[in-house]
Amino acid sequence: MQPHELSLAAAADAIRARKLSPVELVDSVLDRIEKAEPHLKAYVTVTAEQARLAAREAEQEVAAGRLHGPLHGIPMGLKDLIDVADAATTASSRVRADHRAETDSTVAARLTAAGAVLVGKTHTHEFAYGLTTPQTNNAWDQDRVAGGSSGGSAVAVAAGTATFTLGTDTGGSIRVPSALNGVVGLKPTYGLVPRHGITSLSWSLDHVGPITRTVEDAALVLTALAGHDPRDPASLATSAADYRPGAGTDLTGLRVGVPRNYYFDHVDPEVEAAVRRAIAELETLGARLVEVEIPMTRFIQATQWGLMVPEATAYHERTLRAVPELYQADVRILLEAGELMPAGDYLRAQRSRTLMRQAWARLLEEVDVIAAPTVPAAAAKADQSTLTWPDGTVEGVSDAYVRLSAPANITGVPSLSVPVGHDTTGLPIGMQLLGRPLGEPTLLRAGHAYEQTQPARRLAAA
Amino acid sequence: MQPHELSLAAAADAIRARKLSPVELVDSVLDRIEKAEPHLKAYVTVTAEQARLAAREAEQEVAAGRLHGPLHGIPMGLKDLIDVADAATTASSRVRADHRAETDSTVAARLTAAGAVLVGKTHTHEFAYGLTTPQTNNAWDQDRVAGGSSGGSAVAVAAGTATFTLGTDTGGSIRVPSALNGVVGLKPTYGLVPRHGITSLSWSLDHVGPITRTVEDAALVLTALAGHDPRDPASLATSAADYRPGAGTDLTGLRVGVPRNYYFDHVDPEVEAAVRRAIAELETLGARLVEVEIPMTRFIQATQWGLMVPEATAYHERTLRAVPELYQADVRILLEAGELMPAGDYLRAQRSRTLMRQAWARLLEEVDVIAAPTVPAAAAKADQSTLTWPDGTVEGVSDAYVRLSAPANITGVPSLSVPVGHDTTGLPIGMQLLGRPLGEPTLLRAGHAYEQTQPARRLAAA
Repeated sequence: MQPHELSLAAAADAIRARKLSPVELVDSVLDRIEKAEPHLKAYVTVTAEQARLAAREAEQEVAAGRLHGPLHGIPMGLKDLIDVADAATTASSRVRADHRAETDSTVAARLTAAGAVLVGKTHTHEFAYGLTTPQTNNAWDQDRVAGGSSGGSAVAVAAGTATFTLGTDTGGSIRVPSALNGVVGLKPTYGLVPRHGITSLSWSLDHVGPITRTVEDAALVLTALAGHDPRDPASLATSAADYRPGAGTDLTGLRVGVPRNYYFDHVDPEVEAAVRRAIAELETLGARLVEVEIPMTRFIQATQWGLMVPEATAYHERTLRAVPELYQADVRILLEAGELMPAGDYLRAQRSRTLMRQAWARLLEEVDVIAAPTVPAAAAKADQSTLTWPDGTVEGVSDAYVRLSAPANITGVPSLSVPVGHDTTGLPIGMQLLGRPLGEPTLLRAGHAYEQTQPARRLAAA
Repeated sequence: MQPHELSLAAAADAIRARKLSPVELVDSVLDRIEKAEPHLKAYVTVTAEQARLAAREAEQEVAAGRLHGPLHGIPMGLKDLIDVADAATTASSRVRADHRAETDSTVAARLTAAGAVLVGKTHTHEFAYGLTTPQTNNAWDQDRVAGGSSGGSAVAVAAGTATFTLGTDTGGSIRVPSALNGVVGLKPTYGLVPRHGITSLSWSLDHVGPITRTVEDAALVLTALAGHDPRDPASLATSAADYRPGAGTDLTGLRVGVPRNYYFDHVDPEVEAAVRRAIAELETLGARLVEVEIPMTRFIQATQWGLMVPEATAYHERTLRAVPELYQADVRILLEAGELMPAGDYLRAQRSRTLMRQAWARLLEEVDVIAAPTVPAAAAKADQSTLTWPDGTVEGVSDAYVRLSAPANITGVPSLSVPVGHDTTGLPIGMQLLGRPLGEPTLLRAGHAYEQTQPARRLAAA
């Protein structure tokens, strides 16, 4: 097994045991980038030289007995919405051609302090305002969409061009590409991971979190990321915690909610079957399955859009007037549409969110976790704009991709997407586990237990 | 001295000492209502029969040694936005002719539990959306405005037709009529007193608080009102506290900010002189005066209106479409204008509020209290729609009335309005003391100390 194929936890163990040096690991990932990146186009920028320097520094520190922890010497990619000092943050947009951050975002600073080595900035759907990331190809099939908006981050982890990455998630942008590329994506509880220094899409829905190869890896990254920062006004007053799940797989006593409505409507049969098999696996591990009713489902789409559209437009107000021609057409039309939205629609969405949060809080008293598909179908073809369901309903690809992930953004509850196999064409399928606010330990425990029952996942061949 | 002339504290002392019975006190207030109310029109409803029943009950409890505390047997008026079980809450509007509350608002329940006796529901500017309360006359001059929107509540306290009342304050609606009628009005910290069961004007700016004859009385009422209630989503997780200020008048060490900008611009010379005399009195008591610069003043009006207008319209959405003809013309036009406001304007106001809160927090590190006029001029004539300043500027009466009080609504800081004398025509003048969030004890201590240096205030003759 090549170093770039290792999970974060396995690489960290090998570095701690001095069986692997950060330089070997980073070189292996950079070699992999050189081979795979021409087909994948996951990166906006590869910072090979700085990465090699940082790897040597890490190697020396480890050799001197100054290991910072499990992220020390681990190659990472950061979605190109995330500021890194003295580097460009392009948001994959021509609007940002000249934008350079002066200081690190909170998450970049925390990961650097933990010893992680930046190998590059990954592609996003322009300004995170879309669910396909058209610049980037799916790691499993170059003719398929990467998913978005954190498409580059998910593809890099799936293909071994980073050991872990960060994505951001406003309507599903960590979980959707994670599911479509067969990797793990965690959207943490709203406010758990500070967003200071990250380009905003919609501040009341924006989250940042890890994309990794395993649930355990997601826990290791979350441990480095979580904790209060007053520079993010929504940051929760939580203290540092160790999220690494225990080794056991016994889920006795865990109540897993299985939605009787919404989450299995208009879902591809292969996706449904794979998710239901995974849920049965949770039951085999001791969990008790409880049928649950998802509340207020007919308000989900209007609430998500009612919040996101005007907040996005507010953020882009000046550049939209100054340089509208520099935006991609799909993003520009959404931003311009936001200028026409009345305040009343936004307020209705805010009030609806308040009611949805309360209704979900009641739902999550009945169960500890809700298990559901992350995305209703595997990756669409790159030129495909709609999905047609067996009852004849036609749905836009982006509408379908956001449909099952948006409730966690509106309510702020954490959601962990875990790979649950591939369909008959070889495309990955994801299941999300949703939990109570700050219920990350429960999600990680359940996801980790499930993962241990499955054969080790392989990298995408791309 | 008649019982209805007593301050709350004096009446409570007399009741505790068994020198005054709740029945005598309530009868005295009801007699006063009978004489004065035809001229004042402070009340929507007077609940004389229920009040007499409650007074007899209180009398029996006190006689049996079961005194609940200082509010037991004290006659109060509640602004007619505040729900009382099985009574109408008209909001002084024809739209609400048939509205009856099923349960008490949090504040009504807490005051009733403390033994206070409701004598009636007081007039508000329709739905609290205005600063004059045209139905009600100023307690000191029937040809002058009561101020608003809690005009009935302030006039009742000033004229002795209630020992204390509650008002609500979205842009100054407790403090403006308190200043214009020579009584004490406290707008508490945002979230300190729960608003469950109170008709909303603008939920992110709305507050409820006491109107009383003395600062000590305000503290006694606040003690009964404050504390968490999860049914108000903005309610702070504070625990019960005793706000009664100590007897001392030594203010040594207190830093009092005196604004060099904004608060003394376009202010009537008699108002300015009275407020500066009161500030000098604070210095005599030991306070240190510190000149301060008020931040972001050119954003105050746009932020207040940008938040209030769409929130008010959202609340009235259904009735505005169903029965527009039942609203007064001034309120209807404001509500209809709110339908045209773009979401972007509301978001700009939200972002401006965030920055103003931060700027005020820094300002309130330099000083403990800011002292300023509550309203730039004494009560206007009832038919007067504008004020003309010496430099020729013409300002709408309502714009002038909200100008100095709105900053405390936008930032959520507490503000206590205290009478500081009368102008040469006999009209009262108010000074407000603004403090840090949850800084009520400091405001009450300073206001109480100031009050003790002044001759006892008399009731309005009306």
